[in-house]
Amino acid sequence: MPIIEVNMFEGRTSQQKREMISAVTQAVAQTLDVPETNVRIIIRELSKDNFGIGGKTAFELGR
Amino acid sequence: MPIIEVNMFEGRTSQQKREMISAVTQAVAQTLDVPETNVRIIIRELSKDNFGIGGKTAFELGR
Amino acid sequence: MPIIEVNMFEGRTSQQKREMISAVTQAVAQTLDVPETNVRIIIRELSKDNFGIGGKTAFELGR
Amino acid sequence: MPIIEVNMFEGRTSQQKREMISAVTQAVAQTLDVPETNVRIIIRELSKDNFGIGGKTAFELGR
Amino acid sequence: MPIIEVNMFEGRTSQQKREMISAVTQAVAQTLDVPETNVRIIIRELSKDNFGIGGKTAFELGR
Amino acid sequence: MPIIEVNMFEGRTSQQKREMISAVTQAVAQTLDVPETNVRIIIRELSKDNFGIGGKTAFELGR
Repeated sequence: MPIIEVNMFEGRTSQQKREMISAVTQAVAQTLDVPETNVRIIIRELSKDNFGIGGKTAFELGR
Repeated sequence: MPIIEVNMFEGRTSQQKREMISAVTQAVAQTLDVPETNVRIIIRELSKDNFGIGGKTAFELGR
Repeated sequence: MPIIEVNMFEGRTSQQKREMISAVTQAVAQTLDVPETNVRIIIRELSKDNFGIGGKTAFELGR
Repeated sequence: MPIIEVNMFEGRTSQQKREMISAVTQAVAQTLDVPETNVRIIIRELSKDNFGIGGKTAFELGR
Repeated sequence: MPIIEVNMFEGRTSQQKREMISAVTQAVAQTLDVPETNVRIIIRELSKDNFGIGGKTAFELGR
Repeated sequence: MPIIEVNMFEGRTSQQKREMISAVTQAVAQTLDVPETNVRIIIRELSKDNFGIGGKTAFELGR
């Protein structure tokens, strides 16, 4: 613990994902006062057809 | 809020997903008394090999 | 299947939850063409201290 | 109920998944005293680029 | 990895939860060929008012 | 999007949660190049009886 799940749109590079994992791990470790080695992060990538905002898909909304 | 996660078998068309997102957003907004614009929906698609019912996969059960 | 997870703020009545479960089950069954008996819904209630929007908690934002 | 979500690295065979679903269903049914037919299992497969341990991805760590 | 999430009705004893955690850890480790020490299990307890089956809550259905 | 779910042990103060939400929102916004206002964070608090590591609960392990 802690275990973090990040739901985000597909399409990021491996480099962006690594930077995000590193930065979020630091942010969580510092504020919750846990060792970085305890922090686990799961990335769940979504297509814009699979995310709805106010009744429309992100694809329909041009997000 | 609210944020809804819909776990469903893969294979639906974009049109079916849009109709589901629209209908579920309306149902949630009306019954929980929130603006539709607040409602977020995440669709997680599953293969029938990745869903178990009573110890067998949906694929094995011919679902 | 489908299995739906509804994340929402705590404080709704049992009656509101029942109406939401009934309405969302119908909406999902009709649009995804599955029997209502197949639809499962999990409600996860959150305090406003446990939900962040743009870096602030819903409580801080007076939501 | 119960509904189990298994997050695991991608790459297992269908046979391994079936054995895991069968074994976990039995383990849950016996210890929680519910019929096996009530137990649902969702498998979520992850790439090693999408899982962080202590600030590094599983891929970077050679897991 | 793997990380397992177990959604179940509230009301089990600590002893039952420990037995379930031990049995599921073994089942997963053996079938997915990973060390038991890698297996993490999150238990999410639900009230019967917060789980819907076919449009009715588990409470309404007397489950 | 992105929507983050943070699973963590119960017992933190509101202030710690706010600092974590603020720091994680910044980390995600900067590395994934999205506005902070788009970032949503759900906190799920767990008791040490409801988290298993290697077949034992965090409570049994004195975590």
